[in-house]
Amino acid sequence: MLSLCTFKLNDSEIKLVMPEARFAEPLYTVIDQDRESLARYLPWADAMNSVQDELNFIEFARHQFADRKLFLFVITDNRQPVGMIDLHNVNFDSHSAEVGYWLASSSQGKGIMTNALKQMIINIQPELQLHKITVVADVDNIASRSIPQRLGFTHEAVLKDHIFSNGQYHDADTFIRLFD
Amino acid sequence: MLSLCTFKLNDSEIKLVMPEARFAEPLYTVIDQDRESLARYLPWADAMNSVQDELNFIEFARHQFADRKLFLFVITDNRQPVGMIDLHNVNFDSHSAEVGYWLASSSQGKGIMTNALKQMIINIQPELQLHKITVVADVDNIASRSIPQRLGFTHEAVLKDHIFSNGQYHDADTFIRLFD
Amino acid sequence: MLSLCTFKLNDSEIKLVMPEARFAEPLYTVIDQDRESLARYLPWADAMNSVQDELNFIEFARHQFADRKLFLFVITDNRQPVGMIDLHNVNFDSHSAEVGYWLASSSQGKGIMTNALKQMIINIQPELQLHKITVVADVDNIASRSIPQRLGFTHEAVLKDHIFSNGQYHDADTFIRLFD
Amino acid sequence: MLSLCTFKLNDSEIKLVMPEARFAEPLYTVIDQDRESLARYLPWADAMNSVQDELNFIEFARHQFADRKLFLFVITDNRQPVGMIDLHNVNFDSHSAEVGYWLASSSQGKGIMTNALKQMIINIQPELQLHKITVVADVDNIASRSIPQRLGFTHEAVLKDHIFSNGQYHDADTFIRLFD
Amino acid sequence: MLSLCTFKLNDSEIKLVMPEARFAEPLYTVIDQDRESLARYLPWADAMNSVQDELNFIEFARHQFADRKLFLFVITDNRQPVGMIDLHNVNFDSHSAEVGYWLASSSQGKGIMTNALKQMIINIQPELQLHKITVVADVDNIASRSIPQRLGFTHEAVLKDHIFSNGQYHDADTFIRLFD
Amino acid sequence: MLSLCTFKLNDSEIKLVMPEARFAEPLYTVIDQDRESLARYLPWADAMNSVQDELNFIEFARHQFADRKLFLFVITDNRQPVGMIDLHNVNFDSHSAEVGYWLASSSQGKGIMTNALKQMIINIQPELQLHKITVVADVDNIASRSIPQRLGFTHEAVLKDHIFSNGQYHDADTFIRLFD
Repeated sequence: MLSLCTFKLNDSEIKLVMPEARFAEPLYTVIDQDRESLARYLPWADAMNSVQDELNFIEFARHQFADRKLFLFVITDNRQPVGMIDLHNVNFDSHSAEVGYWLASSSQGKGIMTNALKQMIINIQPELQLHKITVVADVDNIASRSIPQRLGFTHEAVLKDHIFSNGQYHDADTFIRLFD
Repeated sequence: MLSLCTFKLNDSEIKLVMPEARFAEPLYTVIDQDRESLARYLPWADAMNSVQDELNFIEFARHQFADRKLFLFVITDNRQPVGMIDLHNVNFDSHSAEVGYWLASSSQGKGIMTNALKQMIINIQPELQLHKITVVADVDNIASRSIPQRLGFTHEAVLKDHIFSNGQYHDADTFIRLFD
Repeated sequence: MLSLCTFKLNDSEIKLVMPEARFAEPLYTVIDQDRESLARYLPWADAMNSVQDELNFIEFARHQFADRKLFLFVITDNRQPVGMIDLHNVNFDSHSAEVGYWLASSSQGKGIMTNALKQMIINIQPELQLHKITVVADVDNIASRSIPQRLGFTHEAVLKDHIFSNGQYHDADTFIRLFD
Repeated sequence: MLSLCTFKLNDSEIKLVMPEARFAEPLYTVIDQDRESLARYLPWADAMNSVQDELNFIEFARHQFADRKLFLFVITDNRQPVGMIDLHNVNFDSHSAEVGYWLASSSQGKGIMTNALKQMIINIQPELQLHKITVVADVDNIASRSIPQRLGFTHEAVLKDHIFSNGQYHDADTFIRLFD
Repeated sequence: MLSLCTFKLNDSEIKLVMPEARFAEPLYTVIDQDRESLARYLPWADAMNSVQDELNFIEFARHQFADRKLFLFVITDNRQPVGMIDLHNVNFDSHSAEVGYWLASSSQGKGIMTNALKQMIINIQPELQLHKITVVADVDNIASRSIPQRLGFTHEAVLKDHIFSNGQYHDADTFIRLFD
Repeated sequence: MLSLCTFKLNDSEIKLVMPEARFAEPLYTVIDQDRESLARYLPWADAMNSVQDELNFIEFARHQFADRKLFLFVITDNRQPVGMIDLHNVNFDSHSAEVGYWLASSSQGKGIMTNALKQMIINIQPELQLHKITVVADVDNIASRSIPQRLGFTHEAVLKDHIFSNGQYHDADTFIRLFD
C-alpha cells in the first residue's frame, strides 16, 4: 500500500494512500450510506451508483496519477477507507492546484480531514513546487469551509453559482494558501 | 472551413473557425512577431517555438474538440488568421466554462475580440447549456480586461497570483456572466 | 453549432453542421421511420438499431473529422436534423474523395440534397484541394442518381455488384466532377 | 515466418509472407534502386526515404492485419523479399476488396506476380468471403495491367485521373473478378 | 489463412495457423467439452465462458502477434481447429521464450502436439534467434510432460507451486532446449 | 512522495518510493558511473544512455504501476535515489511474482538491499496476495545472490543460460519464498 503520509489521531492511525481496487467496495458502501448528505454539496455523489462505478473511478485516478494530472488519496483510519482527499486542476505553469475532499459522516468531527489536508500539503507541496493551493467549498457547507480556516488559509473570493448539486446552483468560497 | 459564426466589422469579415493544419504557419508567424507582448501575460507564448509546435497544438485542439473538452476557434479576418478564442475548463456538471483569447497586435483596437466573444457566446452558450461563463484576465492587462467589461460581464473576484508569466506571479480578475 | 455552410430554400434554413451528441436521438428516429427505404440501398441502415448506435457513430465521426479522414455533416432544416452528407475515402495523395448522403423521406423532393452537395463542394473542395469528387449511387436508386446529374457531374462508370444491401448485390453508377 | 502460400516457379520458391521487421532493410534497398520506375505509377514510392520509413510501414501493416483492414504480404523468392501484394479497401459489408502490388524490376518477366495474385486469391478469397476483387492499374502501366488480364479478370471501367504520381494525374483501368 | 507450417500425420493435414475470428466458435466448443480436464492443469480454462470470451482472446492474440509479444497459433487438423500452441514470455534480450499448448482430448494420442512443437521450433526459432526454449508442465500432467521429453528437451528444474489451478498449487517441471 | 515503506539503517533513512520524473537525472548519474559493473549482470544497463532514457523508463513504470503489471520502487537514502527494487512478472492467477533490484556501488555493503527486499515483502505481499516470490540472480553475482539467502529464501533451481549480458549467456539461480 503506497502512502503519502501517516499520522496518529487519538487511537487512530490515519494514512493517505494510493487508491487500490480493493477499496472500491468499502468506499462504495460509505458513499451509499452517506449519499444524501454528500449529494447536497458534491455533484458526483448521485452518479456513483455501484461498486463498479467506484472501481472505474479508482482506475481512472490511478492513470491520472501516473500522468501527474490528479493526485488523489484514499484516507484510511486503521486501514479502513473513510474518505478521499486530492489535488486536481494541477497547473505546473502557474504552480497552482485545487484541493477536493470528502469524509464519511461517521468519521467526521475528529479532526481527520483538517490533519489530512495539513499533512497532504506538507508532503506534496514542496515536491510539486506549488505556489498556491486553493480550497473551494460551498458557502453553506460549514464542515467543509471550516477546514481551510482552521489551517490558516486566507479567504480569497466568493464564486457565484460555482457548484451545481441537488438541482440548484450554489455559491462557493475559495480559501488560499501561498508558498514561496 | 467549419465556422461557428461570421460577422462584419467595417470592411472585414470575421469568422470563428475550427483550427486547421494550414493555419499553423500564419499563426506561428503572428505569435513570433508578437512574442514579447503575448508572453507578458500568457504563459504558453514562450513555449511556442516553431510551426511544428503550433501544428501539434492544432491537432491537440481538434481532438479535444471531438471529445468536447476544449472548444477552440481560430479568428480569421478576411480569411487570414489573426488570433484565437476558446472555451476551456468546460464543466458539464456545473454548466460552466472559462474563456481564453489572444489577438495579433496589428488587429487590436478594432473591436474584433469584443465582437468575437459576444458572437461565440451567442452561438455556443445555448448548445452547451452553460449557466456561467468566466473571463480571467491579468489585472494589468488592460486590453484583455476591457473586453468582458464592454460586454457587461460582472467583476467577480481577484485571484491572487493566479498567472505565472514572464518570471513572476500576477493577480487576475475574473469577470462572469450568468445565463438562465 | 459548427457549420460548414448555410443556405435558404423556400422558408427553410438549411445548414451542414458538425455532428453533435444531441442529434443522436432525432437522427435515430428518422432512420427508424425510414428504415425500409434506406436499407434498400444503404448497407448500414439495418445495423443502426438504437440511439446508442447512432451516438457511437457520431462520436466516431467526430474523431475521424479531427483526423481528417471523414468529413461528415448533419443536414439540418430549421435546426432539425433531416439527413447527412459526407466526404469519405478522402485521399490526399490523389486529391480525391467520395460523397455519401441520405435524407429523411419527408424532406425529399425539395432540392435539399442537391443544394447540400453543391454547397458542400463550394465550401470544402478548395480547402481540401480536391481534384476529383465522386458520387457512387445504386443504379436503381433514382433519387440518389439524380443529384449529381442535376449538378452536372459526368457519368464515369458502372461498378458491378458494388453494393450489397437487402440481401443482394447491386451495380452502382459513379458520377464525377474534376477541379483544376 | 507466417506464410499465406508457397509455390514453385522454375528454380524459385515463391512465398507470400507476413511482413517482418527484418524485411525493412532488403525491401528498402529494392525500392531505392527502382525508385524511378516505381514512382512513375505508385504515389508512395517517393515518400519512402529510409529503412526506418519502411520499418514504420511494416509495423503499420502488421497492426492493420491484426485489425483485418489490410492484408499485405511480402513476396519472397528463395527467402529474399522482392515485392509486395496486398488486399486493401476490404469491405466486409459489400464483400469486396482491392488488390495492390509491386515487384522489383530484377524479378519481373518471370510470372512471379501473375502467380502471386492467383495464389493470393485462391488462399484468401474463400476465407474472407469476398464476392468481388478489383485490380486498379494505371492505363499506361502495361506490366501491371497485364497481370489481371492474364488471369481472366474482366475490364470494368476507366477511372478518370484516379492516380496522382510523378506530378500528374493518370487514368486507371479497373479489372474485376466476381465469386459466388 | 496464414500458416507457420503444415505437416502430414497419417491421413491428417496439420497446420499451425494465425488465429482468426471464425475459429472462436469451434475452439470454444472444444474447450467447453474438455473443460474439466483442461481446468485440471490450465488456469485459464475456467475463465473461458463464452464464444465472445474466445473471440476477445483471439483479437488480443492477433495484436500481441503484431507487437511480437506472443506468437500464438491455432492447430488445425484437416482445417478444423483442435488446439493451440504458442511462444510467450518472449525475451529478445536473453533470446528466450516459453512454450504453451493444449489439445482437444479427441485429438490426443496421435502425435499431433509432439509434431506441432517440433515444427513450430523448426520454423520460428531461427527467425526469432532464440537461444533457449522452455516448456513448463505440471508435474502430474503426464501427457504434457511427455511432449518435450520425446523431442529430447533436457529437464532443467522443478518449480515449486508454480501453477494454481483447480483451487490448489501444483509444482511444475521445466524442460529446455538450447540453440547456438 | 508516495512511499511503500520507510526504515532506519544507522544514520540513514531508507524509503521505497514511487518513481518520479525528478529522479531521472540522479538515477542516470548513478547508472552511468556504475555502468561497467551493472552491465556485467543486468542486460538493460547498456541500453540506458541518457537522462531521457531514464525518464522514459520512469514514465513507463508509472503507467505499469497504474495497471498493476509492475511494482517498481526507487530506493532513496536520506532522499537521494540510490537504486531500485521491483516486483515484475506479477501473475495474479498463480499468485506469484519475481523480484528485481540494483544498487549504486557506493551504497552497497550496508544492508540496504537486504532490508529493502524484506520491507517490500512485508508491505506488499499481503496486499497482492502473493503465494510465491522468486529472486533470480546470476550465479556469479555474489552480491545479488546473498540477499535472498540472508532473508531465508530457499534455493529452487539453476536456470541455464537465463541471462544474456556483456555478450554472453549466464546461468541464474532462483531463490523462492512461499506464503500461506
